[in-house]
Amino acid sequence: MRNDDVKFMRLAIKKAREGIRKGQTPFGACIVRAGKVIACSHNIVWKACDITAHAEINAIRQACKKLKTIDLAGCTIYSTCEPCPMCFAACHWAGIRRIVFGCGIEVARDFGFNELSISNLKMKGLAKSGVKILPGVLAEESAGLFRLWQKQPNRRAY
Amino acid sequence: MRNDDVKFMRLAIKKAREGIRKGQTPFGACIVRAGKVIACSHNIVWKACDITAHAEINAIRQACKKLKTIDLAGCTIYSTCEPCPMCFAACHWAGIRRIVFGCGIEVARDFGFNELSISNLKMKGLAKSGVKILPGVLAEESAGLFRLWQKQPNRRAY
Repeated sequence: MRNDDVKFMRLAIKKAREGIRKGQTPFGACIVRAGKVIACSHNIVWKACDITAHAEINAIRQACKKLKTIDLAGCTIYSTCEPCPMCFAACHWAGIRRIVFGCGIEVARDFGFNELSISNLKMKGLAKSGVKILPGVLAEESAGLFRLWQKQPNRRAY
Repeated sequence: MRNDDVKFMRLAIKKAREGIRKGQTPFGACIVRAGKVIACSHNIVWKACDITAHAEINAIRQACKKLKTIDLAGCTIYSTCEPCPMCFAACHWAGIRRIVFGCGIEVARDFGFNELSISNLKMKGLAKSGVKILPGVLAEESAGLFRLWQKQPNRRAY
């Protein structure tokens, strides 16, 4: 764990809360390079009517636009929940160096999301990827996002 | 193999060729439901400066917009190359029923693409996914797209 990991995870959590208030699902992510926030997004699958619009994918797209490159080497992604295999692979393509996440993918599954049950560690091992993975940063607060989301009257998983 | 599988794969190949002519990488995909083409795209990673803009992701996004739903159940995706783990997982999230592809992911790797080396069959098995996978439809023509791309003076893999 690095000094700033908790700070940036709090930012991802704050973004996820913003998404929940706006009727979206409880996932947030931000991308940081050299101590600077490059991109931050919550999930907008419902808003955008786009099943690929996970928080991590949105943040990666934003970061590419902002830095005018498809190469996010040297970046860390902070995700409130363990990235799904789609998002993990997107991090790989982008060359992201570190994946820091809060609660595990099984929490999303427990709350009704149709997760492919392949952990980031499993994906990393299978693919012999060099990405660094740090799980469990503010895990309890990240899991709390799902409980907050569950109280919303019009919540919809997928 | 179904009657129309070759026909729709030819469409994906045609789209990939269009992409190559426009300076993009040699991947095409189309999504079909009940015999009708819903969406068709080539890879636009370079054009869009978006590392997630694979042909399959673009086609899924287009199909969601067109059908006004994030649920692509009943759809088949035709992809000139075996979908990478990002695109495979996106198909899962979208509920796509069948994945039909041309050449294997190792061909992309051989031509310099930084593929995570996890096949669709492996992903399906690990995740206990019910998606149907049909490999090798017009595999030789699909692999030929890479050779065509390789002749382009300004080609760039990633």
